[in-house]
Amino acid sequence: MELKVGRMERGPRNAITDVAGVRVGHCTVDTDRHKTGVTVILPCEDDIFRSKMVAAYHVLNGFGKTAGLMQIGELGTLETPIALTNTLNVGLVHDAMVEYMCRQAEQRGYRITSVNPVVCECNDASLNDIRHRAVGQAEVFAAIDSASQDFALGDVGAGKGMTCHDLKGGIGTSSRIVEVEGERFTLGVLVLTNHGCLRDLTIGGKNVGAEIEGVIREDSPDEGSCIMIVGTDLPVTARQLGRILRRCSVGLARLGSFIGHGSGEVMVGFSTANRIPAEGGCLNFRCIHESHMDDAFRAAAEATEEAVLRSMLEAGSVTGYTGKVRRSLRQFWP
Amino acid sequence: MELKVGRMERGPRNAITDVAGVRVGHCTVDTDRHKTGVTVILPCEDDIFRSKMVAAYHVLNGFGKTAGLMQIGELGTLETPIALTNTLNVGLVHDAMVEYMCRQAEQRGYRITSVNPVVCECNDASLNDIRHRAVGQAEVFAAIDSASQDFALGDVGAGKGMTCHDLKGGIGTSSRIVEVEGERFTLGVLVLTNHGCLRDLTIGGKNVGAEIEGVIREDSPDEGSCIMIVGTDLPVTARQLGRILRRCSVGLARLGSFIGHGSGEVMVGFSTANRIPAEGGCLNFRCIHESHMDDAFRAAAEATEEAVLRSMLEAGSVTGYTGKVRRSLRQFWP
Amino acid sequence: MELKVGRMERGPRNAITDVAGVRVGHCTVDTDRHKTGVTVILPCEDDIFRSKMVAAYHVLNGFGKTAGLMQIGELGTLETPIALTNTLNVGLVHDAMVEYMCRQAEQRGYRITSVNPVVCECNDASLNDIRHRAVGQAEVFAAIDSASQDFALGDVGAGKGMTCHDLKGGIGTSSRIVEVEGERFTLGVLVLTNHGCLRDLTIGGKNVGAEIEGVIREDSPDEGSCIMIVGTDLPVTARQLGRILRRCSVGLARLGSFIGHGSGEVMVGFSTANRIPAEGGCLNFRCIHESHMDDAFRAAAEATEEAVLRSMLEAGSVTGYTGKVRRSLRQFWP
Amino acid sequence: MELKVGRMERGPRNAITDVAGVRVGHCTVDTDRHKTGVTVILPCEDDIFRSKMVAAYHVLNGFGKTAGLMQIGELGTLETPIALTNTLNVGLVHDAMVEYMCRQAEQRGYRITSVNPVVCECNDASLNDIRHRAVGQAEVFAAIDSASQDFALGDVGAGKGMTCHDLKGGIGTSSRIVEVEGERFTLGVLVLTNHGCLRDLTIGGKNVGAEIEGVIREDSPDEGSCIMIVGTDLPVTARQLGRILRRCSVGLARLGSFIGHGSGEVMVGFSTANRIPAEGGCLNFRCIHESHMDDAFRAAAEATEEAVLRSMLEAGSVTGYTGKVRRSLRQFWP
Repeated sequence: MELKVGRMERGPRNAITDVAGVRVGHCTVDTDRHKTGVTVILPCEDDIFRSKMVAAYHVLNGFGKTAGLMQIGELGTLETPIALTNTLNVGLVHDAMVEYMCRQAEQRGYRITSVNPVVCECNDASLNDIRHRAVGQAEVFAAIDSASQDFALGDVGAGKGMTCHDLKGGIGTSSRIVEVEGERFTLGVLVLTNHGCLRDLTIGGKNVGAEIEGVIREDSPDEGSCIMIVGTDLPVTARQLGRILRRCSVGLARLGSFIGHGSGEVMVGFSTANRIPAEGGCLNFRCIHESHMDDAFRAAAEATEEAVLRSMLEAGSVTGYTGKVRRSLRQFWP
Repeated sequence: MELKVGRMERGPRNAITDVAGVRVGHCTVDTDRHKTGVTVILPCEDDIFRSKMVAAYHVLNGFGKTAGLMQIGELGTLETPIALTNTLNVGLVHDAMVEYMCRQAEQRGYRITSVNPVVCECNDASLNDIRHRAVGQAEVFAAIDSASQDFALGDVGAGKGMTCHDLKGGIGTSSRIVEVEGERFTLGVLVLTNHGCLRDLTIGGKNVGAEIEGVIREDSPDEGSCIMIVGTDLPVTARQLGRILRRCSVGLARLGSFIGHGSGEVMVGFSTANRIPAEGGCLNFRCIHESHMDDAFRAAAEATEEAVLRSMLEAGSVTGYTGKVRRSLRQFWP
Repeated sequence: MELKVGRMERGPRNAITDVAGVRVGHCTVDTDRHKTGVTVILPCEDDIFRSKMVAAYHVLNGFGKTAGLMQIGELGTLETPIALTNTLNVGLVHDAMVEYMCRQAEQRGYRITSVNPVVCECNDASLNDIRHRAVGQAEVFAAIDSASQDFALGDVGAGKGMTCHDLKGGIGTSSRIVEVEGERFTLGVLVLTNHGCLRDLTIGGKNVGAEIEGVIREDSPDEGSCIMIVGTDLPVTARQLGRILRRCSVGLARLGSFIGHGSGEVMVGFSTANRIPAEGGCLNFRCIHESHMDDAFRAAAEATEEAVLRSMLEAGSVTGYTGKVRRSLRQFWP
Repeated sequence: MELKVGRMERGPRNAITDVAGVRVGHCTVDTDRHKTGVTVILPCEDDIFRSKMVAAYHVLNGFGKTAGLMQIGELGTLETPIALTNTLNVGLVHDAMVEYMCRQAEQRGYRITSVNPVVCECNDASLNDIRHRAVGQAEVFAAIDSASQDFALGDVGAGKGMTCHDLKGGIGTSSRIVEVEGERFTLGVLVLTNHGCLRDLTIGGKNVGAEIEGVIREDSPDEGSCIMIVGTDLPVTARQLGRILRRCSVGLARLGSFIGHGSGEVMVGFSTANRIPAEGGCLNFRCIHESHMDDAFRAAAEATEEAVLRSMLEAGSVTGYTGKVRRSLRQFWP
């Protein structure tokens, strides 16, 4: 069955990596004790620290531990890859990203004494022994090394232990083509899903979750967070990108989430269209006129909804370290 | 047919006025030239200026002209009724509210030299000759005088000239009961709807708008705004109330809106549970524990969705000053 | 005596009107009952509605009634002149600005059905019978008609009834030259001052206010607000302009203010360097590299401090409608 | 010489630890290669995770890497001690705080699977080989173990390698007594100073920095950040505490800073007056009336100014790993 969300044309991979230069890598830690991992989004192939990217963030529900947002808000730029992991592993992954950036700089012949890693998280404690932080430098470096335009979805990387609408969640992605005066741009979304109640799950307007609940008798509070990463080659300012990010929540709502208290909903976005050099005088850059934002907004809403659905459909069932099972949506739908 | 949105119990009136003390009044200006008006929400029957209400706001899309939000953000209080009107009438309604508050104070034996009226707006220019500001002091005072627990919905008051999903919009309301440890509270929403494309309109998961579009061949950009007013007797702080407001957008998304560029989406909320005296030393107040927020969040999402739907279903077709017709959803659905 | 604040070079007029195209006009209402008025800042001589200006705002203390900020925050643009007046007159001035913009558009051959006037205010109730709103359409239009590169300071326009550090305040201005890689730009500040306690007043590091207090025995709470308008021809984004605005408060602090509770401190800024057409596809624009922001920051701090001082030094003593006298700083200093 | 800033009465220790229950600990890493460390603020002696503290933050300049703010903003609570360290060490200190909290919980008989450590930072790279992260779990635990009401200032803990106005900076503190209707409260500030240009340094209104610059010929850009931690037993809401935090910048400005581009200025505050249990129904709490905020604002301004000055006066000269010397202000003043 073909999953179809919305009206707009998808990119060829239906992935955030449809945006030229973007790659995604995973390292999964799958042991008796651990169902966790790390996922990295590399926004470009060249040196992002010396040629930063326009970036923005939006916090819909700030019950979460994401690091690195403050500087994005102030300067409107991203200067590292984005890493996703579990809640208690933010510190070690942050440190690994610092090490990675220092080494990258050295290889390129300069030194850095300041860098702002962006590390987002969801809580996989229902399947993973989270207090023992299993994701360290080796795992982060492995995820970066494996980064590619083609990447796995579902219960992989940071998504290994995540739960979405009480079923198995994880990594999802989708993309849309946005046309501005005949020019074609791409907007892609990658999500790490760990939110929602089973009973609320609604697909294509149908309350699928209530039916499934009749079978598996499980409904817990809407908690656990959803991270939404938006990449695009649309020429936009940080302010415009922030506006786009605020539309991602539409995708969550249409699948039945009411953005629960315990669910940290955080969006981070970057545009590859204008690069900001580490030094310079005056910059010339390009941005779309505000009157063309509607297609970008619709793209963000559609791609987020589809990405969340795919995070569930691509995930297999996973049994956690305490024996708890999170089942795949595929068992019940379509 | 019974319209039913969500799982939660409604209040007896299914209206914001289910919150004790809240009243709503309209004054409609319905002439050849004008399809416009003003709607006021009076949060209490006693003196709100001397006994302010905990309040908050949230701006989902700030393309709009609402006045009075800045002080709500700083002080977390509301000190006047809330008025809704058309975009170009904000100034005159603001002035009328100042006059009203000055007179109220004088009647109560004191003088005020500062007051912060809250005036929200949507743009009714497609039906109303908006450049000629038809809502003045007389209309505002009439709306206040008519305020009652029972009030009309649809194409009345500020809603007279509004358009929602290319059909007739206007004033809608709904309420939900929220239980916290056995105690029952009410959360009500009043909306002024003027947003959305026809083709996106989705009711109960069904893309009704696309069908209607086949009949009336009209689809314009998602622009024009939606104002959402939340009243509750839940004991909450301004911060908690702000969190509740952010869930209203879920209701818009489920009906098909992607929160278009031209659509100013503004939420203003107040709680009647803790009053803030004009003077004092230390205050004692009460608030729910954060762990009980989920029901309030769900209530805001459900009540907003139902209020928007009702704003359309209660509105008749209206012909504007240029001959443009906005049809009632009732012609097509259910 | 030459007043000198900071290290940086001033513009030729030492005024916000050193920024090419900017003009300022006043209309003063000076009667037995009224000491009030309106001041307008016109950012350009051509059509600002069709060719908007990059703009930003910052609220340091939101106890105030300024209208029009929300849309600036969302869209990063200014589409009208900025008007300053007294607190209770915001509504009528807002309405007058709507009328002005509608007429301007008609003269230029188009119609507008939406416009976002920016109206800032301070409270002059200690000298002015504020409940009777004395500033209407005639006064606003007169202020606009009188706009010029050269304009009066002190107790004029919106400044007529204002009080600063318990002495006479009002309108002040100052400007600084900012060099970026050999290119010279101008940053100007215009203030409407109505804040501060006498005892805290500090000039050039000397606590002048405590000495004056020994003479005039007057010290009231720090309340009443300060509006700071920044104009510049620096090519900056809205985000960068917002960063500049946040440095204006440095100027207030150095003169002794601790940003009191009752004092609404609001900054609004615009850049004339990049104009945003009403319609278009992709825009090319220019902005300075972030590494050059420091001089703009210092300029904002210095110019604000000097503008506040000038608002006091240029103001004569004024006797209010109740007989209350606000004395000129010139009587005591230097 | 007695250093005296402002008018208000100090607490007995003139320190943040004048607030009952608050303790501060340092661990300094002082080797040939490293001039760095960690400082922890423990807000209470009992279990902060189970009985959270009302908290707020304010970002004046977000060019920085502080972690943990997002959740404070959403929930208005602090659930861990606050750690200060160097920029690249945020990750490892974050991880150490997670470990500390997990162990604390276990000792108290429960398990945690989510926790939000607050880790603030300044950049000590001019004296410290920052790329080699010298602060790990052992150092964090040592700092916590050493926490006490009496603690060293200047070049200790996180302050070891910091530079303020081109002289030696580091850790400073000060406190003020705030009276509300006869009841005495304490507001304390602890700063980690690493900001400002020498030439701008102004003490008691005198431009001391320009004189010193004549002697040591050093003036670099205003960069490097200042962290300001406010602790108080004033009963305030998170919103009120945020307002207090915004006044800390007054203290920086009076010492000559214009809040440079490269200087991340971050304030975090907590109130010990109302504790938030991990679970519960409705809470009763107390807060001061807004009309009493002015003394708290003045206290924040004064205490921050004095704390920054003390951070410099208490610091000895320090020679960095490259031979660079940061001299003590005591050599030049008073």
